[in-house]
Amino acid sequence: MPLDEAGALRVYAVTGIGEVREGDDVGVVLAESLGAAAPDGTPSLRVGDVVVVTQKVVSKAEGRMVRLDASDPAAKASLAESESVRVLRRRGDLLITETAHGFVCANAGVDLSNVEEGWAALLPADPDRSARRIRAELGRRLGVSVGVVVSDTFGRPWRQGVTDVAIGCAGVAAVVDLRGTLDATGRELVATQVCVADELAAAAEIVMGKDRRVPAAVVRGVPATWLRHGSVADEVVRAHGEDLFR
Amino acid sequence: MPLDEAGALRVYAVTGIGEVREGDDVGVVLAESLGAAAPDGTPSLRVGDVVVVTQKVVSKAEGRMVRLDASDPAAKASLAESESVRVLRRRGDLLITETAHGFVCANAGVDLSNVEEGWAALLPADPDRSARRIRAELGRRLGVSVGVVVSDTFGRPWRQGVTDVAIGCAGVAAVVDLRGTLDATGRELVATQVCVADELAAAAEIVMGKDRRVPAAVVRGVPATWLRHGSVADEVVRAHGEDLFR
Repeated sequence: MPLDEAGALRVYAVTGIGEVREGDDVGVVLAESLGAAAPDGTPSLRVGDVVVVTQKVVSKAEGRMVRLDASDPAAKASLAESESVRVLRRRGDLLITETAHGFVCANAGVDLSNVEEGWAALLPADPDRSARRIRAELGRRLGVSVGVVVSDTFGRPWRQGVTDVAIGCAGVAAVVDLRGTLDATGRELVATQVCVADELAAAAEIVMGKDRRVPAAVVRGVPATWLRHGSVADEVVRAHGEDLFR
Repeated sequence: MPLDEAGALRVYAVTGIGEVREGDDVGVVLAESLGAAAPDGTPSLRVGDVVVVTQKVVSKAEGRMVRLDASDPAAKASLAESESVRVLRRRGDLLITETAHGFVCANAGVDLSNVEEGWAALLPADPDRSARRIRAELGRRLGVSVGVVVSDTFGRPWRQGVTDVAIGCAGVAAVVDLRGTLDATGRELVATQVCVADELAAAAEIVMGKDRRVPAAVVRGVPATWLRHGSVADEVVRAHGEDLFR
């Protein structure tokens, strides 16, 4: 059977975005990159697309940059702790902590790569809100309703290698709940809540890379049912009482 | 800037695959579905594609099915324990265990969805080997060198919602190591080993769904440098000594 070209999911790297600085509006930057492009003036972005943008540019635009001497391990640890509500594990330079958002990750998400020497990027204060603002600006400027995911790179406890996950979203579900739907044998699917926002972030990372200077991607062909209000804080962050590893 | 249509990553659902049974060869089944399709006889599959196939059809084909009365919680727990080398956490019906492969997941990966009533699917004994066999068969039948990922659906300790991850791979890297490459500011990237096999599995899940009866996907446009020998067992499974949560 031929592969269904029209039905394929497509993931595009968004290229040509320059250095983002404090005070920039990520929605404006993306709208300029994704705006009128075709000869007939239609924007590159279409209704139902999901724009994935990395935390790094969002943090830079929102001024979430702090001075840090990267050669001072104590200063790094101190900064990570100040961004955490709890330290879960500590090994050498590595802290696994819980942030105020409820994310459990290395060094509270404090990040030194792709930032200027002497500086560190903190996570956005409210990444769902960041996503909503970007989504609103894209809607205003390009006249299209899209989903937005703010992604970051997290490790996992029992698996080597990092992957990108969603830390914020807007206009797209974070978790899709398939409980109550039937499997191929007619039995009800159980415990099948799928974190689609994380899957979108992971798919986007494939075209963005960490070494290719691409801070955003567009995912086209996402199931229409996913395009609703979504929130990583509300849907993905697991409460303490439901968590077996904290 | 227009989106680069030619450079986009594409993810196709592989449709038209019927029920897979013990003794079937997943490579043959996929080759039949992905074989000569275009009017000129070229196969749907191309050199450099990555085929993602779910654990369920691999387990069925390899006869990794056992009798289980799903209404008997003790029998379910007993089966999960017999597939585990260690139980990490237990809450009601839910066991978080470590399998002989070194995977940490719910109920040792024992799965009751999309299998016949009265049966349960165990994980393949050696999912990397399963992937290698599928890859070899696709190469023999279609004359194309592709990557293969065997995927399964895992939960995560601190995030709600499941995502698909790689439990086996062949002809494609599990983890790509970017240490030593430079970021956009010219500084060396540190601690940037990316689990690309998990990202490919996650991207594939977007088009497969759990309610759409699609057991495989083709990812086209994967970076050429990722297409080398890979092994989930060797690259992704974290050793006890390096693990902070076991």
